[in-house]
Amino acid sequence: MIGSEALVRSLVTSGVDVVFGNPGTSEMHFVATLDAVPEMRGVLALFEGVATGAADGYARLRESPAAVLLHLGPGLGNGLANLHNARRSRAPVVAIVGDHATYHKQYDAPLESDIDTVARNVSTWIRRSMRPEDAGRDAAAAVAAAFGPPGQVATLILPADVSWSEGGSVAAPAPRRPREAVSAAMLDTVATVLRSGERTAFLLGGSALTARAIGAASRISQATGAEVLGETFPARIERGAGVPVIQRLAYLAEMAAGQLDGLRHLILVDTKAPVSFFAYPGKPSDLVPEGCDVIVLAGGGDDAAAALEALATELGAHPIAVSDHPTPDRPSGELGAESIARAIGALLPEGAIVSDEANTSGTFLPTFTAGAPRHDWLTLTGGSIGQGLPVAVGAAIACPDRPVLALEADGSALYTLQSLWTMAREQLDVTTVIFSNRRYAILRMELARVGATASGQRALEMLDISPPDIDFVALAKGLGVPATRPERAEAFVADLERAFSEPGPHLIEAVIPSLF
Amino acid sequence: MIGSEALVRSLVTSGVDVVFGNPGTSEMHFVATLDAVPEMRGVLALFEGVATGAADGYARLRESPAAVLLHLGPGLGNGLANLHNARRSRAPVVAIVGDHATYHKQYDAPLESDIDTVARNVSTWIRRSMRPEDAGRDAAAAVAAAFGPPGQVATLILPADVSWSEGGSVAAPAPRRPREAVSAAMLDTVATVLRSGERTAFLLGGSALTARAIGAASRISQATGAEVLGETFPARIERGAGVPVIQRLAYLAEMAAGQLDGLRHLILVDTKAPVSFFAYPGKPSDLVPEGCDVIVLAGGGDDAAAALEALATELGAHPIAVSDHPTPDRPSGELGAESIARAIGALLPEGAIVSDEANTSGTFLPTFTAGAPRHDWLTLTGGSIGQGLPVAVGAAIACPDRPVLALEADGSALYTLQSLWTMAREQLDVTTVIFSNRRYAILRMELARVGATASGQRALEMLDISPPDIDFVALAKGLGVPATRPERAEAFVADLERAFSEPGPHLIEAVIPSLF
Repeated sequence: MIGSEALVRSLVTSGVDVVFGNPGTSEMHFVATLDAVPEMRGVLALFEGVATGAADGYARLRESPAAVLLHLGPGLGNGLANLHNARRSRAPVVAIVGDHATYHKQYDAPLESDIDTVARNVSTWIRRSMRPEDAGRDAAAAVAAAFGPPGQVATLILPADVSWSEGGSVAAPAPRRPREAVSAAMLDTVATVLRSGERTAFLLGGSALTARAIGAASRISQATGAEVLGETFPARIERGAGVPVIQRLAYLAEMAAGQLDGLRHLILVDTKAPVSFFAYPGKPSDLVPEGCDVIVLAGGGDDAAAALEALATELGAHPIAVSDHPTPDRPSGELGAESIARAIGALLPEGAIVSDEANTSGTFLPTFTAGAPRHDWLTLTGGSIGQGLPVAVGAAIACPDRPVLALEADGSALYTLQSLWTMAREQLDVTTVIFSNRRYAILRMELARVGATASGQRALEMLDISPPDIDFVALAKGLGVPATRPERAEAFVADLERAFSEPGPHLIEAVIPSLF
Repeated sequence: MIGSEALVRSLVTSGVDVVFGNPGTSEMHFVATLDAVPEMRGVLALFEGVATGAADGYARLRESPAAVLLHLGPGLGNGLANLHNARRSRAPVVAIVGDHATYHKQYDAPLESDIDTVARNVSTWIRRSMRPEDAGRDAAAAVAAAFGPPGQVATLILPADVSWSEGGSVAAPAPRRPREAVSAAMLDTVATVLRSGERTAFLLGGSALTARAIGAASRISQATGAEVLGETFPARIERGAGVPVIQRLAYLAEMAAGQLDGLRHLILVDTKAPVSFFAYPGKPSDLVPEGCDVIVLAGGGDDAAAALEALATELGAHPIAVSDHPTPDRPSGELGAESIARAIGALLPEGAIVSDEANTSGTFLPTFTAGAPRHDWLTLTGGSIGQGLPVAVGAAIACPDRPVLALEADGSALYTLQSLWTMAREQLDVTTVIFSNRRYAILRMELARVGATASGQRALEMLDISPPDIDFVALAKGLGVPATRPERAEAFVADLERAFSEPGPHLIEAVIPSLF
């Protein structure tokens, strides 16, 4: 058995049966292996950033890795931004980077570059298979490393000659580490704080944003008065009917500071202490208020949901009735960020997966979707735009029976628009809404916040993506996705309803005023 | 003066007056500075790979760097593939990577990552400005480092607080190192070889592909019988009327081996000894034939053209009459790789700049364009596809009075298609021809060459970019560029003629059979 077949079969044995990719010459044996191993599904992307983001989206839903196949250092580079975001998602991803044959590297051929250093930006687990005999075992180890918990990007570099040479064998899955139980002592510590009557808040992140974990935290909140916040950019949060509504910590440091002001205790549950997204002149980076102590109830490898439930039991917190939030009426009139949020809140289907990269245009979404049927909400975890459409691709591959809604700012969508083609090829049930305000609106806002005084045309032009106006209906058509551009809220509602009711991908371009 | 202003003014003082970029929050003071320093032109791209490739294209024409502005590690990642290509072009590029404020890095905010390790993939010169007092001097040093020669990607990391704090001052340009003269001893050594009567070839690359250098080498060839070859993927080669035609070393190692077979001496002029692009089972990576010695006449920092001229003088080589190559007739009938090459050969305007990423569909181009008016030909230097359109953007910014022709394989075009929008915004005189064969044809070819046996549908689907068919006319329209899809050669000729005669960008999609 050649190395690539040993690798692919070992991935399958370890539970990895989807590979997103953009292969090149050094990956041709991996590709050929797809004929021999029908259990592995290959999903082609037109650009590596689509493939890596899709692997992230897939992992967020499945809690198990997909593989992504990349072509040497430059292919890894093209996929790097969304691997950065995946690192921040703590999503398990197995990145397989094809490389030149071991004996060919010395010649410094045109595509030769230092893959390891690039991988180090996103991976702490990096391995190079040096013999076909190792390929299977290395694949199994990569899957276990990616799984964590917490999940991570595990990078396996696969030289072409290791791929094509005989000597490989299929490896058994490496054991997956279970989440660790939080100690009784820690539970006692936190329970004592919660009983103190001092102002306390939970900050939930990662695995503590399931309905189960949010429910437990909310019961504790009702019993003790502690507040419950979610992290600003969760990889996945369960929301909607039956799940208590929690506020996420605001992106704007000024607003986040307001949410945290006066706290005496901040209890972190699978997340980090809050910091400002960027530094701003004269403002603090650390958002934990003075005099507030920080307690880590559960880290990334811990069973956060079980800890919260145990804590609820210890505190005698009773089940609570989760009140239904109102569902907004279908909007009419002008189309804008608010009417779109109302329409989504009114129409979001049961079991939807929402990939949210609406950025500034998404301001009204949390409020108007709180009363929707049960759904998952996925956000831009690492701040590198161009994640939302690829994540939607991966989510749709992971959960073919669930509708996916991608909410995309226009500037962000243009980073990885090639995602639409994969949606069309795979006939994924993804509805994409483009919030087309024709500028990098967040930078308009940030310009003032960092104290830069740019009122001149030359600076502002660097923040505007018009002229020329970008025509997303034409772009979608070019990539095989049917699209519309409704001009008023009524038409938007009709288009959204049709997109949800029909299978396959759709795109709706909403040209709206910028909020900034 | 704040750090960003010191930096931008120092760049201008050092001769860098264009910055391609995708700024983010950490670069807002740099952007605001564009209002204060009108000598610096900001050119916005919708994706960093466009910006970095444009800087490469600009540098190839100007032989002086442009700057490219990137947003932290992920922005550098998005631009990395075309910086890799720029590294292989030995193009001078100043990459300015905005980073978090120095004091903010400790908090591991979402966009925090290890920028230095990523930069190491493409840059040996990496510096981080730690104080506003340093920003100007660091900028000047970056320009000098980028200039070389040989040119390189110099990476300057600019923390946000260095950018916004007072204390900066404008730095004088750092001295640029002139190219070094090749020693008389080396010239004598090479002259002795050339007089030996043994079979000898020059391999010209880099700065040895100007009309002047090619002319000198061709005179020597006529006087001594030595052969003259160009490197496979030159950053820039002057061609057309008045320039002797030289063959480039073939991409396919089998064909390159045929070109080199029987050589006793290979004289390298600003290029490396030839190696196979990829490794193939059972085939050599090193393409220098057994028994052939390799002599380096001029390296990347040497004055290669002067060395060739001195050698021609020493050998008593006389000026030669450069015979005109025939210009093909305008083609008619079926549209395909050959008829397109004939049309381009018939219509290429005087002074054109051709950015060639036609890949397999470009097979016929060298032959049919040899008789065209004088032009520059730029190729995919580093093997990472998605370079051609960005390079065309940069070339058009560098040389606004010259027509630019981008020859793009469909698969490659889709990596950095956002380039079209910058062409539209800046109204660049770029004609893009898409060779739409609807597959990664080179991988179809490579699959067999590496000995992978994939005849099954599942593997071949990973090499096809249809279905769905990609509609480049719609995509161009979406990004603001007028486009056509001629169905026969006559219509292609008419569309190409109109595109060359009208200012501003045009795109022509040619749906053609794949050669593989």
